[in-house]
Amino acid sequence: MNMESPVTESPQVLVTRLAEAARAAQRVVALMSDAQKAQALKAAASTLRDDETAILAANKRDLEAGEAKGLSGAMLDRLRLDGARIAAIADAIDQVAVLADPVGEVIDRCERPNGLVLSRVRIPIGVIGIIYESRPNVTADAAALCLRSGNAVLLRGGSEALHSNRAIHAAMVRGLESAGVPAATIQLVPTQDREVVGAMLTAAGLIDMIVPRGGKSLVARVQADARVPVLAHLDGICHTYVHPSADPGMARAIANNAKMRRTGICGAMETLLLDVQFSDSVALVGELLDAGCELRGDARARALDPRIVAASEEDWDTEYLDAILSVAVVDGLDTAIAHIAAHSSHHTDAIVTGEDPAAERFLAEVDSAIVMVNASSQFADGGEFGLGAEIGIATGRLHARGPVALEGLTTYKWQVRGTGQTRP
Amino acid sequence: MNMESPVTESPQVLVTRLAEAARAAQRVVALMSDAQKAQALKAAASTLRDDETAILAANKRDLEAGEAKGLSGAMLDRLRLDGARIAAIADAIDQVAVLADPVGEVIDRCERPNGLVLSRVRIPIGVIGIIYESRPNVTADAAALCLRSGNAVLLRGGSEALHSNRAIHAAMVRGLESAGVPAATIQLVPTQDREVVGAMLTAAGLIDMIVPRGGKSLVARVQADARVPVLAHLDGICHTYVHPSADPGMARAIANNAKMRRTGICGAMETLLLDVQFSDSVALVGELLDAGCELRGDARARALDPRIVAASEEDWDTEYLDAILSVAVVDGLDTAIAHIAAHSSHHTDAIVTGEDPAAERFLAEVDSAIVMVNASSQFADGGEFGLGAEIGIATGRLHARGPVALEGLTTYKWQVRGTGQTRP
Repeated sequence: MNMESPVTESPQVLVTRLAEAARAAQRVVALMSDAQKAQALKAAASTLRDDETAILAANKRDLEAGEAKGLSGAMLDRLRLDGARIAAIADAIDQVAVLADPVGEVIDRCERPNGLVLSRVRIPIGVIGIIYESRPNVTADAAALCLRSGNAVLLRGGSEALHSNRAIHAAMVRGLESAGVPAATIQLVPTQDREVVGAMLTAAGLIDMIVPRGGKSLVARVQADARVPVLAHLDGICHTYVHPSADPGMARAIANNAKMRRTGICGAMETLLLDVQFSDSVALVGELLDAGCELRGDARARALDPRIVAASEEDWDTEYLDAILSVAVVDGLDTAIAHIAAHSSHHTDAIVTGEDPAAERFLAEVDSAIVMVNASSQFADGGEFGLGAEIGIATGRLHARGPVALEGLTTYKWQVRGTGQTRP
Repeated sequence: MNMESPVTESPQVLVTRLAEAARAAQRVVALMSDAQKAQALKAAASTLRDDETAILAANKRDLEAGEAKGLSGAMLDRLRLDGARIAAIADAIDQVAVLADPVGEVIDRCERPNGLVLSRVRIPIGVIGIIYESRPNVTADAAALCLRSGNAVLLRGGSEALHSNRAIHAAMVRGLESAGVPAATIQLVPTQDREVVGAMLTAAGLIDMIVPRGGKSLVARVQADARVPVLAHLDGICHTYVHPSADPGMARAIANNAKMRRTGICGAMETLLLDVQFSDSVALVGELLDAGCELRGDARARALDPRIVAASEEDWDTEYLDAILSVAVVDGLDTAIAHIAAHSSHHTDAIVTGEDPAAERFLAEVDSAIVMVNASSQFADGGEFGLGAEIGIATGRLHARGPVALEGLTTYKWQVRGTGQTRP
């Protein structure tokens, strides 16, 4: 497909054409062996490295357009590629290539009294739609994960990264085709027409799952408009509760890391719950304030340190993604669990405690995708969980939850082997 | 809740109130032990038996209203209860009570190099909405499966079964409450206002999953309007392909059983694909015709028997649910797989063959929820699969596929146990 060709079709016709081509290609890759898919990904990593010059030139076009449009320095930095970043993108593809292939795994097997043998076997989901914003590396990461798990993918990136995405896509497709993977396995939507996003979101039966990768407004729009199943998290309002039995040093270290290591990631702590019986709260909040974190507290929290400002009701439901933290003093484990039930986005919530019964109650009763004991919520990440790269983190309740990687890109079929059985 | 009270709230307010009560009750049952839930279900089966007289009286009101409304004999039969049917409903609850509890199962567990111990633990989905039609037994079956897996349920049955459903619900709740299960765990929507169905379908965040149980028009409406994830199958256009190597007697027996055992179930064969090289096609179609099945064939099929009428293009995409079968003669396995890819509803498709390579290719390449070798597609059933009762059969590609029972009513959480780890 010539990515520069003007698109004259309606969004629905375009998405139907792309999705049907993806479905045909997916039928081929669904039957490819582990080794074939791994080899194809290594080839794509290699052609991506070969195209460094072309990719940097395309990225330069995007950066110049972005500066002209007045993009923020942060957005330009997310957009910017250099030799090291391209090498990192290629290395990430190589890392996906060596991940275990989930396709074909027999989930379970049983023989019925009538002799029928039933197996549940893992298969690819089919055609995945990825809707993302400015980071060009998502083009390569998402494509690699989808292919590794036998899926085809429709990639719809942000207009600010248009040329970078096209160059990365073209380089990967050349490598994949050299290894026998149909080009339509990985397609970049050839227009920035926003109506195409709407057409993708409603393409039930053509696209099997949509994964939005980007800011809250993008994810909210996708969740609101989609008829296709969506794998996503809207936000990460993550809590850390410090139990009276917590080791003070551990509590200080975890609170600091959970908030301040990187304030902009979805696993960053946004609300700190300090038990009224915890003895070291003054030092703990003092360290956060000294580290440059703004604390917004309830009345009892403000009594811990005059630098703590008053929290409003909205603060308990706010994902700051910044060096800001809401702090409440709570009366025991039950109050902490109730606060989390009322305000958590069910992404990641943690307890710091020295008592196993409190830890086990927290793990059992807090209903979030990830629940942690004595660890920083910033560990909420597919790589840290040993999944390899992740396609996203899901806070929905169906299919896959928490960090989602290859297994979350698969489903299963029932295989029934008989010897002529008929049903009485 | 007094089921006879007039409902004056708006549908959205009503669904919000019911769903929030369900969520609170679900938090209680989510933490109940296997034994507590089993005991509660046995108590509900027992109170259901105790209330036989009241349930039969309520059912009589529904039957009289149905006759007055001129319901068909088939609908009246689906609606009709008697002592034996009530005993069967109670027995089914007892059978669910003894099924293994999926909640708390550790799906997998690993220790990371930094010492973090990760476990994926099965938990209930939360609040399930069931939207169903005339069979009153669904009230008890669905409620039992949802509670067994730690979920709360909102039941919205058909108006024709209103009094029967209310009597069954009241009997079950009395038993459940006697065993410490909150009444709001199982709620019957207290109005037949059709707008309430729309409010349930759009109650994202309040209801976690909707399961429609009924005819194609109900399922289609649910799938079209739902914002809440839906577990369903729209139809079962099931194929049986007879390979040249098939044992003639086995092929005749399977074809007959797959079509004629019960023509109205979703696993019934709707299209028969006869390989042009199969030697016994004349006898096979002759048996179906002699059994009273109407056959609609392509030109080569019609040449097998003059009683076969011409199939139209729509026939290949039609679920008859009747003694009607479309028949095509195909040139080999690839043609059969291509026909199924083009026309199957991806519910259940089968091959009859004497050759393992053909069987394994069919199992690998046919992309349906259930693929079968040398067995009748009428085995597509949770009971036959050893799952106990089923909440439904799903043809979607996410979460659960094929017959869905207790496991499909659960999701998982990640539990992370640390010793003070912070992320570098």
